[in-house]
Amino acid sequence: MIIVMSPGATEQQIEAVVKKIKEYGCEANISRGVERTLIGAIGDERQINQELIDSLSGVEQSMHIVKPYKIVTREWHKENTVVDIGGVPVGGKTVQVIAGPCSVETQPQMDAAARAVKVAGCRLMRGGAFKPRSSPYAFQGTGIEGLEMFRRAADEQGLPIVTELMDVRMLDTFLEWNVDAIQIGTRNMQNFDLLKEVGRVNKPVILKRGMSATISEWLMAAEYIAAGGNHNIIFCERGIRTFETAYRNVLDVTAIAVLKKETHLPVIVDPSHAGGKAWMVPALSRAAIAAGADGLLVEMHPTPCEAWCDADQALTPEELIDLMGELGGIAKVIGRDI
Amino acid sequence: MIIVMSPGATEQQIEAVVKKIKEYGCEANISRGVERTLIGAIGDERQINQELIDSLSGVEQSMHIVKPYKIVTREWHKENTVVDIGGVPVGGKTVQVIAGPCSVETQPQMDAAARAVKVAGCRLMRGGAFKPRSSPYAFQGTGIEGLEMFRRAADEQGLPIVTELMDVRMLDTFLEWNVDAIQIGTRNMQNFDLLKEVGRVNKPVILKRGMSATISEWLMAAEYIAAGGNHNIIFCERGIRTFETAYRNVLDVTAIAVLKKETHLPVIVDPSHAGGKAWMVPALSRAAIAAGADGLLVEMHPTPCEAWCDADQALTPEELIDLMGELGGIAKVIGRDI
Amino acid sequence: MIIVMSPGATEQQIEAVVKKIKEYGCEANISRGVERTLIGAIGDERQINQELIDSLSGVEQSMHIVKPYKIVTREWHKENTVVDIGGVPVGGKTVQVIAGPCSVETQPQMDAAARAVKVAGCRLMRGGAFKPRSSPYAFQGTGIEGLEMFRRAADEQGLPIVTELMDVRMLDTFLEWNVDAIQIGTRNMQNFDLLKEVGRVNKPVILKRGMSATISEWLMAAEYIAAGGNHNIIFCERGIRTFETAYRNVLDVTAIAVLKKETHLPVIVDPSHAGGKAWMVPALSRAAIAAGADGLLVEMHPTPCEAWCDADQALTPEELIDLMGELGGIAKVIGRDI
Amino acid sequence: MIIVMSPGATEQQIEAVVKKIKEYGCEANISRGVERTLIGAIGDERQINQELIDSLSGVEQSMHIVKPYKIVTREWHKENTVVDIGGVPVGGKTVQVIAGPCSVETQPQMDAAARAVKVAGCRLMRGGAFKPRSSPYAFQGTGIEGLEMFRRAADEQGLPIVTELMDVRMLDTFLEWNVDAIQIGTRNMQNFDLLKEVGRVNKPVILKRGMSATISEWLMAAEYIAAGGNHNIIFCERGIRTFETAYRNVLDVTAIAVLKKETHLPVIVDPSHAGGKAWMVPALSRAAIAAGADGLLVEMHPTPCEAWCDADQALTPEELIDLMGELGGIAKVIGRDI
Repeated sequence: MIIVMSPGATEQQIEAVVKKIKEYGCEANISRGVERTLIGAIGDERQINQELIDSLSGVEQSMHIVKPYKIVTREWHKENTVVDIGGVPVGGKTVQVIAGPCSVETQPQMDAAARAVKVAGCRLMRGGAFKPRSSPYAFQGTGIEGLEMFRRAADEQGLPIVTELMDVRMLDTFLEWNVDAIQIGTRNMQNFDLLKEVGRVNKPVILKRGMSATISEWLMAAEYIAAGGNHNIIFCERGIRTFETAYRNVLDVTAIAVLKKETHLPVIVDPSHAGGKAWMVPALSRAAIAAGADGLLVEMHPTPCEAWCDADQALTPEELIDLMGELGGIAKVIGRDI
Repeated sequence: MIIVMSPGATEQQIEAVVKKIKEYGCEANISRGVERTLIGAIGDERQINQELIDSLSGVEQSMHIVKPYKIVTREWHKENTVVDIGGVPVGGKTVQVIAGPCSVETQPQMDAAARAVKVAGCRLMRGGAFKPRSSPYAFQGTGIEGLEMFRRAADEQGLPIVTELMDVRMLDTFLEWNVDAIQIGTRNMQNFDLLKEVGRVNKPVILKRGMSATISEWLMAAEYIAAGGNHNIIFCERGIRTFETAYRNVLDVTAIAVLKKETHLPVIVDPSHAGGKAWMVPALSRAAIAAGADGLLVEMHPTPCEAWCDADQALTPEELIDLMGELGGIAKVIGRDI
Repeated sequence: MIIVMSPGATEQQIEAVVKKIKEYGCEANISRGVERTLIGAIGDERQINQELIDSLSGVEQSMHIVKPYKIVTREWHKENTVVDIGGVPVGGKTVQVIAGPCSVETQPQMDAAARAVKVAGCRLMRGGAFKPRSSPYAFQGTGIEGLEMFRRAADEQGLPIVTELMDVRMLDTFLEWNVDAIQIGTRNMQNFDLLKEVGRVNKPVILKRGMSATISEWLMAAEYIAAGGNHNIIFCERGIRTFETAYRNVLDVTAIAVLKKETHLPVIVDPSHAGGKAWMVPALSRAAIAAGADGLLVEMHPTPCEAWCDADQALTPEELIDLMGELGGIAKVIGRDI
Repeated sequence: MIIVMSPGATEQQIEAVVKKIKEYGCEANISRGVERTLIGAIGDERQINQELIDSLSGVEQSMHIVKPYKIVTREWHKENTVVDIGGVPVGGKTVQVIAGPCSVETQPQMDAAARAVKVAGCRLMRGGAFKPRSSPYAFQGTGIEGLEMFRRAADEQGLPIVTELMDVRMLDTFLEWNVDAIQIGTRNMQNFDLLKEVGRVNKPVILKRGMSATISEWLMAAEYIAAGGNHNIIFCERGIRTFETAYRNVLDVTAIAVLKKETHLPVIVDPSHAGGKAWMVPALSRAAIAAGADGLLVEMHPTPCEAWCDADQALTPEELIDLMGELGGIAKVIGRDI
């Protein structure tokens, strides 16, 4: 950590900072510049309470030098981690497309969806049984019954399933129904108690980025899960909130490249929630894979016009097939397959 | 709801929209303009699934006309609602300042804090026993033991207490310790299961704005609580996330004026988390009260330089006394008192 | 235009709105709903002063239905427009990469750069003679002398040139040196007097998106140029400003897809300014082309480590060659070439 | 400047950085930590080209310690600067309210406006002759004729005038008509050629904050003006662009407190453009003065419902009188007057 003292900082103030640094078990290196004095804290700076340093007299600002995350960083773990979802590897050479409807509605809908996922060549299926809706008056999902329908339809096609967990009290039910990967939604990225709980189980977790979470906060949210012992984490970029109102979110492709550099864990992209409209999905999907994403989480519905939720952003089964074709071409250009 | 058809929309497409509107129990009013045809849905438009309408062929866009929230809106409830926290009214003529430390540390710290709150003339006390921290390696709060210390110190001074609930499984404990007002933090504003649970109890809820939540999403989060039967809701603006990096958040004073117009519920402000530095707190507090806020949630620590958390943003007891003096003057200018 | 009246709007207020609409030459269609009355203005709603309507008593809000731009919209001009820059078509089947250094430094630097651009297979060259710098104490560009060096180096290789115009008084000089395409920078996207002037000349204009400009404002800025008679406009997405601090800007790939739908004009991307680091450029470039961009504006310097400006974001000549190879593969997947 | 080397940086890479630092005339202080080596550049770090340092091998990141601005910083100029606009001091004990219409329309309108400004007790008048409009088809201002009407109306009441300069070629005309303070609008905050020109004249400049400009960029824009010799600069906060769509901009009151700390120059606020609606102006104005602003720039129109521009955000003359009364009360609380 670097502590920058104010121009007029006294010797006494400098000494007080040095004393505090030593209390945290670090050594201090003082550098007296023309306009300011700098104090470097040498040692395990993660031990230092930065806010407390900032509150000392004469301190202008302080800056961390070492990254606050340990387990998820690529710094100490150079090779890519491949996460296994029910036998399907995510983060390896093969790009994985997880497809399925926004929400589980009925058994026939799920059966048709599972068949379409399989036919398109996707190896993993998505579907929401518990839905986070901004309005208490909107459809909230089919719940446990939905899980059951989902499991049945996916098993028929031999597809592992991915579904969102919102309430910590529902975790045991997810394990009973043998959900293959637990999705943590954008609104729960910093629901720390939920993160701690999924950190204690042995299931892959797909961690969506918070609506306006920084890369650093996102990595720290993953660190919460990892610190509990569960290292099977997949990041999912789903668009961020900005000033733009012409589309729902802004898909942040730069985040893909930056995450792949910062962490050894896989990174996938949800192009459906990013843009918010089905016609945008192919362009965003191609961009995501071209930028280096390890996979996609795509909404597909057997009959989008009748979907109970997000009807305007689901692909049809035919559109999914076409998309898989294009993505195969792009994967090949960068030395991958699909 | 207004549905705008694309320039080349066919009669068949228009009819399909009208049919769908009628299925939702509304009437359709068609207006054929020079460049576009508009369809107005007359009736209870909250019944209409907007995403499904948007997915119909020939639809360019659709717009809600009626606000999606019902209980919290001022439209049907003109007078201000006054929420009672342990005998102290929030939302009436008197501005209420809720003061106390970021986190509960020790009994002596809490005793000293409670005395300082009382001496400054504040009538409500804050303090965190469970802390949402971005890092899993940072101090996570003193937990249930902290609640006990807080209750004891506050009771000694006759102060009702406000503290944050993060985990739905801890709600019963909060009720046992008779927490006077439950705070829902910024990261949990859209933790819908938590909102539903606090909506079922009979305790005032202070609902902080999500880091980048729109006014509309915030009102809907309150509607979640209200829909459960608990109408004792207080909004708390705490700064929003923007592009600016010179301070932690941007205190949104416009939100105060807009909320007071949109809802009958009280609106308070947290100037400590907004700016992130103690020296900014007086200016932001004065601005908040001048803009019409019903109260403040302020961090004060008996000895800020030793605080275990947010050390750089807590006022000293003396600074709190000075602030209360200034705020009294401003309250008077706008016909209120403190 | 749709005008939504407040719930308690009187007949007199409704009549006043209708009267005002008629003054603007439009007809009014009144639709009385359960909770609100709507008034539709039928005719050329671009004539209506929306702010004035909003200021009338009883008006809750008003919404435009028709897009405010006319010349740049695809609504009335379905086919793609191909803009010719010195004989090189932009916006057709072939993706065009405009490469070159951030700033013109010396004749040998520009000669080397031009050779590298040519060798990599690019057909257009970029370079800044006048530089917009946030600090008045930073290098401001080599000016007219720089234009001369640029022209000479590019002519040697037969490359048309693209360079930024900041000051309206310098336009004649640009014409004298026969600049092939005039770039309007992000800080000048709403410098309306500058837009009007480049709208009067017969040179292609590359209009960069303002740092936090909406798609709608960007289209209107282009409309300023088009309204003057110059329809040779190319949009250039260069990353937007958000809350994220891990990289300079967020490249908005969704904007590419949305613009291609909204306008018939070409859309290119500047991956160098978007990310701000050379190592991000290949991933962002691939994403841009995969999303449907018609070209790129890339920084390349013969010896990046000695560049006078943006040293950390320029590609080397070798990296540019590699990038062109990858982009060729991606272009092919979507039916284009490079 | 602090340069942080990557974990695996070699001695050769460290030496290369030290060599480069010395080339810029600074000394290097090397601090070898457990995980990383830091290099401090001691001397006038403003000489160092940061991008070039960042492009050297083995460099992870670099950070400026010294502020990039010199003339506008309070660091070297402790006392408040009072700027004189036609005999009226801005930045002293007295809060100044600059009032008037959005745009100059007719002589009778300006005469009525000037009388209303005077009657309300304001000492400075605003009005736009040249208007920056997002649409080329919207009213663009009455131009030079407008300046003449404005000058005549204001002179009648003895009021100095403030008006916006958009085009550098119009500066001489502004001087001819003896404009008392030149306003630089939000879209031109980084129009560097315009800043340089107003830096060469001897007239106060009101510099509005760019729509999404950081505090640092804003201070640097002022430094551009100051570097030319003109130190009569007033900052004007006018709301920033965020994700919120319920109001036009978010008035950033924190910026007031931060700027008053960072610079010795006066800071005023435009509450009319911030909120975008007249009914918000009183609350925002009170908040601004309570937070420490030195004045306001307020829109007032003799008959708002007939205004040619921004009709929905202008106060009536009576509302301005009421506002002045409230602001007087708030000014008194913080030891100022109006």
